[in-house]
Amino acid sequence: MRLAVDAMGGDHGPEPVVSGVLSALETDEDLSVVLVGDQDQIEPHLDATASVLDRISFNHTVEIVGMDESPAKAMRNKPEASTFRCWDLLSAGDVEGVISAGNTGAVVAGALMSRRFLPGIKKPAIAVTVPSPVGWSVLLDVGANVNPRPSHLFNFGLMGLIYAKQMLGQDNPSIGLLNIGTEEAKGNDLAKETIHLFNQSPLRDQFHGNVEGRDIFRGVVDVIVCEGFVGNIVLKCCEGMVDFLMEAAGQELLCTLRDERELGRQALSKLHRRYHHSEVGGAPLLGIDGVCMICHGASDARAIRNALGAAKQFRVVNKMISQEMEHTRNCSKVEAEASA
Amino acid sequence: MRLAVDAMGGDHGPEPVVSGVLSALETDEDLSVVLVGDQDQIEPHLDATASVLDRISFNHTVEIVGMDESPAKAMRNKPEASTFRCWDLLSAGDVEGVISAGNTGAVVAGALMSRRFLPGIKKPAIAVTVPSPVGWSVLLDVGANVNPRPSHLFNFGLMGLIYAKQMLGQDNPSIGLLNIGTEEAKGNDLAKETIHLFNQSPLRDQFHGNVEGRDIFRGVVDVIVCEGFVGNIVLKCCEGMVDFLMEAAGQELLCTLRDERELGRQALSKLHRRYHHSEVGGAPLLGIDGVCMICHGASDARAIRNALGAAKQFRVVNKMISQEMEHTRNCSKVEAEASA
Repeated sequence: MRLAVDAMGGDHGPEPVVSGVLSALETDEDLSVVLVGDQDQIEPHLDATASVLDRISFNHTVEIVGMDESPAKAMRNKPEASTFRCWDLLSAGDVEGVISAGNTGAVVAGALMSRRFLPGIKKPAIAVTVPSPVGWSVLLDVGANVNPRPSHLFNFGLMGLIYAKQMLGQDNPSIGLLNIGTEEAKGNDLAKETIHLFNQSPLRDQFHGNVEGRDIFRGVVDVIVCEGFVGNIVLKCCEGMVDFLMEAAGQELLCTLRDERELGRQALSKLHRRYHHSEVGGAPLLGIDGVCMICHGASDARAIRNALGAAKQFRVVNKMISQEMEHTRNCSKVEAEASA
Repeated sequence: MRLAVDAMGGDHGPEPVVSGVLSALETDEDLSVVLVGDQDQIEPHLDATASVLDRISFNHTVEIVGMDESPAKAMRNKPEASTFRCWDLLSAGDVEGVISAGNTGAVVAGALMSRRFLPGIKKPAIAVTVPSPVGWSVLLDVGANVNPRPSHLFNFGLMGLIYAKQMLGQDNPSIGLLNIGTEEAKGNDLAKETIHLFNQSPLRDQFHGNVEGRDIFRGVVDVIVCEGFVGNIVLKCCEGMVDFLMEAAGQELLCTLRDERELGRQALSKLHRRYHHSEVGGAPLLGIDGVCMICHGASDARAIRNALGAAKQFRVVNKMISQEMEHTRNCSKVEAEASA
């Protein structure tokens, strides 16, 4: 599998990206990578003795989308930026996937511009896994779309279902719609129309109905569907809350424990690591005809390596999504709504 | 101050409510309470020797809105339910405020039906406080409105400002709009129009701009404004996450600590208690001409007592909101938008 890696994206420049790529190439002999970015900045980080150099090629560009830059403006003013160049390579068929730890908005903008969607999909969605006492669930969309329609949310449910089966190993996953209450009449117009769509669809047996914010970490359903505006805020809120709580817990333990403070610190640090983004590597942008992994801006080499490692599995996920879409489109009711 | 207390609301029936009311009356001699609900169920919980009984009266009704009941249906089918009766008492001028740990949707529905808003306010908002390393912020709306307009969110900012000044003691509070990125061009249509409104208004100097989910627990701004759909999901998500993380941290400490497990458990329990809803008591429904405190369904006596204790302060908050609205309405631009 050949992947385009945005070597300039991320908060820490090319170093952790290149280091993660080398590690991934060492692990998987079938993998080859195009490092996209400023070759002069990338090359110093390549260990010349690495045995995997023959599976690395370069695509040189000096333009970079800054982490806080407007994706729309960047697209107009920096069409040659590394993030967009990765999408060009996918569109041209040079690679099968795109990996970036850069500006998420720019990655999504590149995807939308490329218009390489799986059959029947009109909007892609970013999916993340969330832990619960009973395992992991998948939450989507966490930020690819801000003004989605009910048919888009329905497709997110379908894609999440495949994700839960293939990536989380769940035989018969359930889908929930993130809402402000469990009754059907709850929520904004988008939520109400989406519930109707699920209830009329071939996925009705897997559709659990509404779930509330507190159900996310309770494992009430395997797939949690929401609009990107809500999902993005929820995701970042959780990130901020983990940092806040772990810091507060650490201080509390420091004040309370006597001889076992170091053990207490280790316990919290172990917990923090277990749910850290680098463990998962990246969040896939689902719905693309090709693989796209969006990594956290603060990704270290391990996160990049894990994202590359996961890419292959998403080839299978994409194939299954296409099949499921085909199957579901046989339901004329849903198709009518989806094409409305 | 005379308050109507929904004695039947809450997950645990009248017991904690009545117990909290007795405690509040003992603390504050200026307080009197109308207990609204089934007198036969309430009276057994009243300690006949309590010295405060002369400041308690009853308003008997047997109808109750269930916690999972549709507020709209309840309003049609149970107009005499305790929650709605509280609002009737406020509308009639018999009480100055309403306290309920019942179905939040029904409390808000009662408020909307009563149409007792402060001058210039067209939608009320539920406000909650959130902790950060630098103190407390106020987040609103967390669920009173699901399809608000930009002018409503603007008014939430104004009300939050008064809350931060009066209740959190902040001299010059800042306002942020909860969004999916910090640049102005980010977000859905509602967010973009709301930013424009703030930037054109007399509050522009206090308006920080967009804040992200992770900023909620970082104390980046004092007032965080959002639509009720998002705020409700964020609030409940945080609740679920605290439970999940505290449980996971407890287990991790149990495995790691040796002789000081009990101390570790105490530290976490202290932390959990510090941010527990019963400490704050209730969340005010702001924008009402009258005081309304919405308590958590799982409220214990302490939460109810604290909610009653806070009610008096919200009389002042309401007066200040009215003054600030008057001041702000002088800005013709905002007024034009608000009445559009």
